[in-house]
Amino acid sequence: MALVDHTATAFDSELQTLSRMILEMGGLVERQLVEAMEALTKRDDERGRRVIAADAAIDAMQRAIEERAVETIALRQPVAIDLREVIAILRIATELERIGDLAKNIGKRVLTINREHLPRQSMHGIGHLATLTLAQLWDVLDSAANHDIAKAIEVWKQDADLDRLYTSLFREILSGMMEDPGTVTVGIHLLFCTKNLERIGDHATNIAEAVYYMVSGRALLHERPKGDATSMVLAAMSG
Amino acid sequence: MALVDHTATAFDSELQTLSRMILEMGGLVERQLVEAMEALTKRDDERGRRVIAADAAIDAMQRAIEERAVETIALRQPVAIDLREVIAILRIATELERIGDLAKNIGKRVLTINREHLPRQSMHGIGHLATLTLAQLWDVLDSAANHDIAKAIEVWKQDADLDRLYTSLFREILSGMMEDPGTVTVGIHLLFCTKNLERIGDHATNIAEAVYYMVSGRALLHERPKGDATSMVLAAMSG
Repeated sequence: MALVDHTATAFDSELQTLSRMILEMGGLVERQLVEAMEALTKRDDERGRRVIAADAAIDAMQRAIEERAVETIALRQPVAIDLREVIAILRIATELERIGDLAKNIGKRVLTINREHLPRQSMHGIGHLATLTLAQLWDVLDSAANHDIAKAIEVWKQDADLDRLYTSLFREILSGMMEDPGTVTVGIHLLFCTKNLERIGDHATNIAEAVYYMVSGRALLHERPKGDATSMVLAAMSG
Repeated sequence: MALVDHTATAFDSELQTLSRMILEMGGLVERQLVEAMEALTKRDDERGRRVIAADAAIDAMQRAIEERAVETIALRQPVAIDLREVIAILRIATELERIGDLAKNIGKRVLTINREHLPRQSMHGIGHLATLTLAQLWDVLDSAANHDIAKAIEVWKQDADLDRLYTSLFREILSGMMEDPGTVTVGIHLLFCTKNLERIGDHATNIAEAVYYMVSGRALLHERPKGDATSMVLAAMSG
């Protein structure tokens, strides 16, 4: 039994390291999103540039987690829930890396819309969407850390709220563009920024699915309640 | 040695099954992209609906591959290149599922822009971008099937061509919108369709990275040559 205990302990210690790395990476990604939104709302080019530069650290963390996870599987040969946990960590790292990319994309846009007039009401809506998105990210990383399946399901369900807010913002920005063609370029920037936030929400939902799988061993099978109805909005407004 | 041989053979057979499943899934995804583009260019609602409905089969394949891969790791406990191969298959399945989602998104737009005037020149450009994207997808799946690292690197590098074409299309569609504000809604649809194609190209590049990792055991480290300069275009045109 001593050998088994030793093996179990060695695996547990590896798993703790991996969990710590994921939480650290999650913290970096959350910070990137906050900074990108600050840069956008305050039209702060310098901050936008820092967000772009900081993305490399997130990419490096993903690679480090991946290498370590594969090493853990190879050396410790975990099975059942232990194996699922490592696989879930791999998936979560992939999702976080993509969220980092989307935050970087918002940072990039800051550099080009800095000097343009940003419609106050739309900016308020985008700020609200960003706050909800951050809360989803925070909650889902919490659910991962605590194996909290109920919280993961909650995040998964709440994505529909984000999608609804995204759709209403989309409609509002589009109205502005149609009323004043001089705002078409700034409008497109803002449409892509809101789309990036909506996609960050989708990635948080993917993390929720990974947590569900990790804890239960089953997939969250049902079609996610999707609320992105922007193509309907476009159809209605073009009539 | 008999036991080892037996184990190796059982693993090889599992791996063959997984590889076959990935190629089948890749075939489905390619077909979805072709069908979505046909639906868009021929304004074929019925075909658009079929694309939307067929996405569920792709999601199911991803889950099946994932379950089987995890089972294979648990039962066969592969190490080194064998383990990398299973991990790479997991990653490729994730990328293909996302490409499927993007093709579905194009299908959804067909239902709403069917009756609008589509600018002939932009549609020609989008068709060209779709053809290049499909070629990338075809090549990268080929590189995965044959462990062809040179071909994977080629796909990875060629993504810059797609990005350049995407940027020039973006500029063209945006010009149209600014010249004739009545085309703003159809223009936004087309911008999102071209963005979806550009993102499919990115996912093909992610698959190329997975193939590189699978064969070499190392990550394709250098920053990918990115050519999406649409924020620069917007800045230049808003001046």
